[in-house]
Amino acid sequence: MFQNFANTNQRHLTPARIAALRSRLETLQIDGIIVSRADEFQGEYVPACAERLNWLTGFSGSAGSAVILKSIAAIFVDGRYTLQVKDQIDLDLMTPLQIPENSPQSWVTRNIPKGGKLGFDPWLVTIREAGRFETACSEAGAELIALDSNPIDAIWDDRPPAPARPVVQQPLQFAGMSSADKLRGIAEGLSQRGAKACVLTQTDAVAWLFNLRGSDIPHTPAVLAFAVVRDDGSADLFLDAARVEEDARDALRQANVHLKPPQNMTESLQALGTAGAKVELDFQWVAEALHRTLLHSGATVSHHESPCTIPRATKNHAELEGARAAHLRDAVPMARFLRWLDTTAPAGKLDEIQAARKLEALRSETGELRDLSFDTISGAGPHAAIPHYRVSETSNLPIEKDRIYLVDSGAQYVDGTTDITRTIITGDPTPEMKDRFTRVLKGMINLSRARFPAGTTGGHLDPLARSALWEAGLDFDHGTGHGVGSYLSVHEGPQRFSKADKTVLQPGMIMSNEPGYYKAGEYGIRIENLLVVREAEPVEGGERPMHWFETLTFTPIDRNLVEPAIMTDAELDWLNDYHAKVAKKIAPRLENPEDQAWLEAACAPINR
Amino acid sequence: MFQNFANTNQRHLTPARIAALRSRLETLQIDGIIVSRADEFQGEYVPACAERLNWLTGFSGSAGSAVILKSIAAIFVDGRYTLQVKDQIDLDLMTPLQIPENSPQSWVTRNIPKGGKLGFDPWLVTIREAGRFETACSEAGAELIALDSNPIDAIWDDRPPAPARPVVQQPLQFAGMSSADKLRGIAEGLSQRGAKACVLTQTDAVAWLFNLRGSDIPHTPAVLAFAVVRDDGSADLFLDAARVEEDARDALRQANVHLKPPQNMTESLQALGTAGAKVELDFQWVAEALHRTLLHSGATVSHHESPCTIPRATKNHAELEGARAAHLRDAVPMARFLRWLDTTAPAGKLDEIQAARKLEALRSETGELRDLSFDTISGAGPHAAIPHYRVSETSNLPIEKDRIYLVDSGAQYVDGTTDITRTIITGDPTPEMKDRFTRVLKGMINLSRARFPAGTTGGHLDPLARSALWEAGLDFDHGTGHGVGSYLSVHEGPQRFSKADKTVLQPGMIMSNEPGYYKAGEYGIRIENLLVVREAEPVEGGERPMHWFETLTFTPIDRNLVEPAIMTDAELDWLNDYHAKVAKKIAPRLENPEDQAWLEAACAPINR
Repeated sequence: MFQNFANTNQRHLTPARIAALRSRLETLQIDGIIVSRADEFQGEYVPACAERLNWLTGFSGSAGSAVILKSIAAIFVDGRYTLQVKDQIDLDLMTPLQIPENSPQSWVTRNIPKGGKLGFDPWLVTIREAGRFETACSEAGAELIALDSNPIDAIWDDRPPAPARPVVQQPLQFAGMSSADKLRGIAEGLSQRGAKACVLTQTDAVAWLFNLRGSDIPHTPAVLAFAVVRDDGSADLFLDAARVEEDARDALRQANVHLKPPQNMTESLQALGTAGAKVELDFQWVAEALHRTLLHSGATVSHHESPCTIPRATKNHAELEGARAAHLRDAVPMARFLRWLDTTAPAGKLDEIQAARKLEALRSETGELRDLSFDTISGAGPHAAIPHYRVSETSNLPIEKDRIYLVDSGAQYVDGTTDITRTIITGDPTPEMKDRFTRVLKGMINLSRARFPAGTTGGHLDPLARSALWEAGLDFDHGTGHGVGSYLSVHEGPQRFSKADKTVLQPGMIMSNEPGYYKAGEYGIRIENLLVVREAEPVEGGERPMHWFETLTFTPIDRNLVEPAIMTDAELDWLNDYHAKVAKKIAPRLENPEDQAWLEAACAPINR
Repeated sequence: MFQNFANTNQRHLTPARIAALRSRLETLQIDGIIVSRADEFQGEYVPACAERLNWLTGFSGSAGSAVILKSIAAIFVDGRYTLQVKDQIDLDLMTPLQIPENSPQSWVTRNIPKGGKLGFDPWLVTIREAGRFETACSEAGAELIALDSNPIDAIWDDRPPAPARPVVQQPLQFAGMSSADKLRGIAEGLSQRGAKACVLTQTDAVAWLFNLRGSDIPHTPAVLAFAVVRDDGSADLFLDAARVEEDARDALRQANVHLKPPQNMTESLQALGTAGAKVELDFQWVAEALHRTLLHSGATVSHHESPCTIPRATKNHAELEGARAAHLRDAVPMARFLRWLDTTAPAGKLDEIQAARKLEALRSETGELRDLSFDTISGAGPHAAIPHYRVSETSNLPIEKDRIYLVDSGAQYVDGTTDITRTIITGDPTPEMKDRFTRVLKGMINLSRARFPAGTTGGHLDPLARSALWEAGLDFDHGTGHGVGSYLSVHEGPQRFSKADKTVLQPGMIMSNEPGYYKAGEYGIRIENLLVVREAEPVEGGERPMHWFETLTFTPIDRNLVEPAIMTDAELDWLNDYHAKVAKKIAPRLENPEDQAWLEAACAPINR
């Protein structure tokens, strides 16, 4: 479970591996292949046995893809990974390109020879992506070929085994709704739309729907399994029954869920096809292989957003109670960590890895920690300016006096997932640091205290978190926040705070609120709390159904970095009120009187 | 020129007209017809001879359409007109339906008989709309038929003549760029995209491109003419040369623009088609008739946003100087009007029409007024709660003590178009009125003082104008602002402040900023200034190219309605600074010392 800081640069192995792959392509009589980072479930994290892109190219980022042709190759990554990819891959063998400015599809159109054949593993490419590659090939007069097996698997001799850890039940007390009730809701939707069944392939949707949790992939207790849900409320779950705990098996049986061996999936889809069933798939997430199996066996296939997406995103009463409990629990190690940092760091002996290890150890002392919810971002000085920094043994920097330190971390507890960022000054900040920190804080506060009409989207609220930075000619280049699961993925869709987002914010959605400011090479700032969308009580004279955000996170914000002179009264009142709540809720949970005293001082009101 | 307040309810004429139309449809052997409010130019205002929808149905709104079938009919209007349409039409003859919830297309699909024929005048329906009706008919197994002539014109015996007023030159001093230079820019774009020509049909685009102004339609000095622009920078303008002033004709000749009789348009398009030319049309605005003529004669047609749209929206230096001068000029009658209202209204003898007439007379006294830029919205008490209220002799209300009065008006001057709303209290406001007014004002101020990164859209800034209302459980149901032309249309695209808007705000764009609050049956509030998007000077420490808004409008905001206790320091500073500028800029322009003294008092600083 503990975070691993090993530095795993494998660039020297790339040439032989790519040569072996090209030789396979020749045997298969194809001119190239698409190598996805995704596995067949298309989740953010994949098990070690599915890290094909990393194994082949050395690139270890959480998103990307490559196209290997006979004599040239390119790898496509987003803005987070443009620097990292150049460090990790062999630049003589492949060209790194940034998406969305460069798409793999347009590169294929330009580079595949006319009459050429581009292979792909239909289990690793979504229906929507496959359609785009189909178009790209046809524009070049080439052909897209779905391969029966993955040529990388054939040459990957030290490939780790497929994960097969036990799958446990998520107790009803935390899930808040039985699997049978969830299935009934989905079945009603299918019936209304005249569909016989839908196929679910997202691992957190499967975990949510069947009230199961796994441990096959780091940080996300999802269940790596496909499922078919029918319009009568019954379901097939393709998961080795031997891996499922007995009480979970009993609960599934009662909910009319049939556990079937994963290898029976194709057969089940073919049976739907033979019956001429209308089957719904979410084309954005489902693998092309399933689509083809259904089509070839005679099913009518239509695109529909996964019916789990909105019910999973809008947390029920038990899930929200769990989230509150998890955040209060997590606030204890956070407060202990901040005090430890405050008292230890000035001596100048700490480094980024020590800090991340200490925080994990303190979380572990709660006795309730199931996992971290992602690899801790522990960034000192210039590393704080890298939003997705991941410390390694070679990058590890000391936490120095008068420098910024940023820690973005989270925990998985059985009742909830946390995600919090705090930015700390060790010693004295510069006036510029205080100004920037306070502008980020103003944005975080203004989004936290927003009231907004029912029907508002995350995109519409996003500028509230930015306008204080804009006033000073500043901004940040990432979204303001993402959805968060209930003891599931820390990045859970569909809602977001970002300019283009069109998802309506609905009561029960949990979201992060994390504006930032990054000065490359010097320092970075981010402040992150989690929020829940709530229905507002009407105010006197109010006319419309409004929503507000309940704050879940209760951890002090570094007062040494706050410049009250540039805050409005309402903003300062919010901050003082927040700190008062932190002290009141968290101090009684700290056993050590010195921790308590530190917390109360850290939460003292700020006057002008 | 003066605004006409006649009440023109013609509902009693509708039955005979619809019966006559249905009899025509029978002769033509078609089952129904689409009746558009639009003319062949698709502008917001149409000349009297093109008011077919109004003539047929009695509905006088500025947007809408009807579908008349053999035995049933429906009329489709947006939320602004749902009450008005019920007053104006004969409800026994047609059903009023609201768009976008109900579309004419889905109504057609449900109601046209299988095998039926739906006629339409392809000059009055855009390419995009025609495509949607095509789909709607084919889904019902019916057929869409383009008619050779409009059956309404055949039965409209007292139809007004087509307008044919003189067309004058817009002097270079105000236009800021010669027509030849504008044409060169468009020709370069056509060449880059490999197109031979584009067809322009938007009347304000034509007026802008050729530096011409007309007076055929009320309030907008556009030119009702089509044009073809070619990739060599030459153009054909289909406009009777006899109507064009001599110096304008000379300037057009020098710019390589050929005046051709309007009836030669079809022939010119056919010539492009015969030559196999690639021709660009803006499918959102161009009439289907032109599209068909080009296609049938062999042209390759592609959709491209009108090449005039962005150059016209981003005003040049001369246009901005003109806008500033026009607004300072317009501020004089506005100040005189507000003083007149302040001193005369308390006696209780004024009404909505008198107020609108007085304001127009004062504007006329500038000696520079060319036209109003739209019919003045002059609303007392409950009428202020109707955002698009238009006073008539029958609706005319007195302006009473302790009641709100709202006036939204604008002027056309040769150097610029104005649009301003002020909300006034005659006597004493209630605490609720002050609270609501101040929240609207906070929104207006927060949008006015925004700084924002280059690349930001109007949609992204919209919530800044709403959050103070949201805090009190309130909102308003219209966009926050629209683009404004340069001595052209007061509603000019493409930029807007509204939730969904995706147009990037570019320096030189003029926009209205007009949040509001409406309490149906009681009172309404709107405060509107015009703004210009400007590039910001970098602030110390600023890192990104930022934009800001220059305010163009200089007219006091009613201090009696301001509640400083709920304003931030920054908001109150903005208001006091604004009022100081109004007094400084406008007082010296007032000839009457009593007007000056009133203005200075109206602009006195507000203290807490």
